[in-house]
Amino acid sequence: MAPSPYKQLEQEFKRLHAFRGALSLLRWDAAVMMPRGSAEVRGEQLAALETEHHALLTAPRITRLLDRAQANAQGLPDWQIANLREMRRQRDHAIATPGTLVSRLTKATSRAEAHWLEARAQNRFEVFAPHLEEVVHLVREKAALLGQALSLEPYDALVDEFSPGITTQDIDDMFKTLSRRMPSLIREVLSLQEARRLVPIVGKFPAAKQKALVVEIMKAIGFPFDRGRLDESGHPFTEGVPGDIRVTTRFDPTDLFSGLLGAIHETGHAMYDLGLPQDWRDQPVGRDRGMALEESQSLLMEMVICRSRGFVRYLKPLLEKHLGLTGAEWEIENIYRHLIHVRRSLIRVDADEVTYPAHIMLRYELEKQLLSGELAVRNLPEAWNDGMEQRLGIRPTNDAEGCLQDIHWSVGSFGYFPSYALGAVIATQLYESLRNDVPELDEQIANGEFGGLFGWLRTNVHGVGAKVSVQELLTAATGKPLAATSFVRYVEGKYLEDNTASSAAA
Amino acid sequence: MAPSPYKQLEQEFKRLHAFRGALSLLRWDAAVMMPRGSAEVRGEQLAALETEHHALLTAPRITRLLDRAQANAQGLPDWQIANLREMRRQRDHAIATPGTLVSRLTKATSRAEAHWLEARAQNRFEVFAPHLEEVVHLVREKAALLGQALSLEPYDALVDEFSPGITTQDIDDMFKTLSRRMPSLIREVLSLQEARRLVPIVGKFPAAKQKALVVEIMKAIGFPFDRGRLDESGHPFTEGVPGDIRVTTRFDPTDLFSGLLGAIHETGHAMYDLGLPQDWRDQPVGRDRGMALEESQSLLMEMVICRSRGFVRYLKPLLEKHLGLTGAEWEIENIYRHLIHVRRSLIRVDADEVTYPAHIMLRYELEKQLLSGELAVRNLPEAWNDGMEQRLGIRPTNDAEGCLQDIHWSVGSFGYFPSYALGAVIATQLYESLRNDVPELDEQIANGEFGGLFGWLRTNVHGVGAKVSVQELLTAATGKPLAATSFVRYVEGKYLEDNTASSAAA
Repeated sequence: MAPSPYKQLEQEFKRLHAFRGALSLLRWDAAVMMPRGSAEVRGEQLAALETEHHALLTAPRITRLLDRAQANAQGLPDWQIANLREMRRQRDHAIATPGTLVSRLTKATSRAEAHWLEARAQNRFEVFAPHLEEVVHLVREKAALLGQALSLEPYDALVDEFSPGITTQDIDDMFKTLSRRMPSLIREVLSLQEARRLVPIVGKFPAAKQKALVVEIMKAIGFPFDRGRLDESGHPFTEGVPGDIRVTTRFDPTDLFSGLLGAIHETGHAMYDLGLPQDWRDQPVGRDRGMALEESQSLLMEMVICRSRGFVRYLKPLLEKHLGLTGAEWEIENIYRHLIHVRRSLIRVDADEVTYPAHIMLRYELEKQLLSGELAVRNLPEAWNDGMEQRLGIRPTNDAEGCLQDIHWSVGSFGYFPSYALGAVIATQLYESLRNDVPELDEQIANGEFGGLFGWLRTNVHGVGAKVSVQELLTAATGKPLAATSFVRYVEGKYLEDNTASSAAA
Repeated sequence: MAPSPYKQLEQEFKRLHAFRGALSLLRWDAAVMMPRGSAEVRGEQLAALETEHHALLTAPRITRLLDRAQANAQGLPDWQIANLREMRRQRDHAIATPGTLVSRLTKATSRAEAHWLEARAQNRFEVFAPHLEEVVHLVREKAALLGQALSLEPYDALVDEFSPGITTQDIDDMFKTLSRRMPSLIREVLSLQEARRLVPIVGKFPAAKQKALVVEIMKAIGFPFDRGRLDESGHPFTEGVPGDIRVTTRFDPTDLFSGLLGAIHETGHAMYDLGLPQDWRDQPVGRDRGMALEESQSLLMEMVICRSRGFVRYLKPLLEKHLGLTGAEWEIENIYRHLIHVRRSLIRVDADEVTYPAHIMLRYELEKQLLSGELAVRNLPEAWNDGMEQRLGIRPTNDAEGCLQDIHWSVGSFGYFPSYALGAVIATQLYESLRNDVPELDEQIANGEFGGLFGWLRTNVHGVGAKVSVQELLTAATGKPLAATSFVRYVEGKYLEDNTASSAAA
């Protein structure tokens, strides 16, 4: 007897999973190991595998099997029904954008990225503008087609690619809540912070010793070095699949925390991927639930856990062990104050968690206006600078620290930025429930025990895979859908804490 | 107008080339970078890509295009005609072995390899025997099918996979010539060698310093580190494609030469691949001309060039520079004598170039007998030991140093061993002509100049790609087809040189 249509689909998607794993390794290698002169050869390999992956996913056979499997879906276990839904989702996304448009986008973004690099280096927006215009034009076309196919508004269709099930309405609600409180909150935090003593941290921290420290912490967190690697690369990232997961970071010998926090951020991604339902590891339903949730897991580790007093208590003796660091600046309270230091800055990737959402809000509004045509590309610099001044009270003096700072638009990633803010909000919403359910969390982390944290996350987030929507997952885990009020409460609790009295060297 | 069938085929094979490059990187990573626990995941990725590669290569579309292109081949340039021939060759090989047999072989060899490892470790042939029997059985079936499809004798069909166009007759002729002279020649060499003074070389050679030495030599040879890498792995190997070529070696801190010679052997492979015709780099006609020629290029570097006085003159100051080595044992003549030291040994991979062919002859005869059924697997150990005694006058005391020493048969590589002897003979045959055409070769190499060597090889070997057969290539380059007499002359000239009089420390 031939396997059922559903079982045949599982076989097809297992193969697609293997392709994606191979593609991920090719990308990891390109960023970490590949000689600089080999980019063209690698590009051909990536293109060949991506094209084949797309052809396999959009083959008429898949559509036929999906139709037959769905016609016989009654009685299937709920994981299989969810898997079918995710299979169709992947296929719908892949088939909505015709090959010719994909190829025009690939060429346009490849040109735009090169000119963005040049424009940023020379601080000349006009070098980038015509190429961004072309990308905006093509992304608009793509959004219209995707929206038609998915019965969504064009911008929602773009968001859906990165954060399935999240709508513009959800994002608007989130930003409305944040807009009401964050500007005044930032002022309060900064004023409180001024009164706090901070012993400066300076020094030379050899990369090899930083790495030994990071490896020890990653091991404590549970990163499996027999099925994963830590390497160094220009920018931290995570690639691979559960079973062979690879994170990178970048060690700065003058900044002890950037390499550590970069690695822990990526370890947050890796732990999510590693905690995905093992039985479904090569199926669509066994994948992560999109970028917003991915980012929630990395930010939870980097921003919430690592910038907590519990973690700093765990960290302090490790700093002494690996780097011989002692003295007033390495006392727990002083380290903590450094880690939660807030300042209004122009650059998103350097922003603290309090001011971060403002950076995203600006990008979110501008990219919607660019796509709708409300904002012309040539007017982007001014709109950016005005927005920055309005939101954070600081104004870029050039476009390199303004609208040229991010790569995203040049590579056609519209609808992606909201994931960062969604991730930050989701992280704090999960954390609120987590602390309720695991009241001894701080103590555990101070002892280098991360079992309570990841036990909760496996049950409520990682092990769910893509079985339910983000909103359903949040409701099950925290009792309510996405709620930016958690983020506000979290920032108020952490950053308005009246600890000016306690000595920085306590 | 649609592209011609020939042009469509070029597109198809360009894609297959990209797949092979991706597969090669996955294998490189598995041996050099991959965490130990990730083998299963990698296995799935390799299988998915290999299956897809096979499906693309054997698709009816390819056959149709080949037929149409061949019907219109008159008037095509000779490179295109040769490319068509190589396309069909690849397709014929791929299609001759049915998927079910491939999959049975994959499973059987995977079991056999595991049991071979165990049998070798425990020195118990009976652990391996039943699995080898299964492999022999399946390879016999494969050889029959391949032979039918290619109109070749079964064993010739296996050889054809590794060394296209070389027949059993060619191999028999080669071994007949060698058998006539080598046994007495080995005795003469050993007796002459006894009279030579040799200052022992012992010491500790840190891996990092060995690596710096190797990198400097590889750069002089012309290895492009901007489009290639050198790494360490359990066994030296070369992977990748021209444009991103990766060699490995293994550094032994107690043996200065093994890491260096391993790296240079692999650099010989890499330089061949890098010298292939650039215009045809992603087409079948632009590939190497099989394992015999590949091995000729690595052995030419490792055995002929590196074990020449010219190279040792180049090496001596580098040893002092990188490892501070001076003294009597590091004088040119003493290093040279170490590099060309001959001894009868049981292990193939440790054998010198004089005794090496005897190891291959033994394996060649035994594997033919195993496949024909003339020799039963259970009688292999005795046949091996008898053959060893007869050919080299030494007898293994256990199977680990006898018939269990090589991995090849466990993984189903029958018809592969002859490539090693063919490679050794071709290397010396090319070298004979090379020295005629580039009389100042020794001087150049002593000065660290490898341009004369590789200029000649590019013209006569590398740049030819797979345009002609091995025999045609040899005839064009050396004036005659494969001739083991070159090997005999080479060994006589190098190893019977009467230099007992010159001081080892001269």
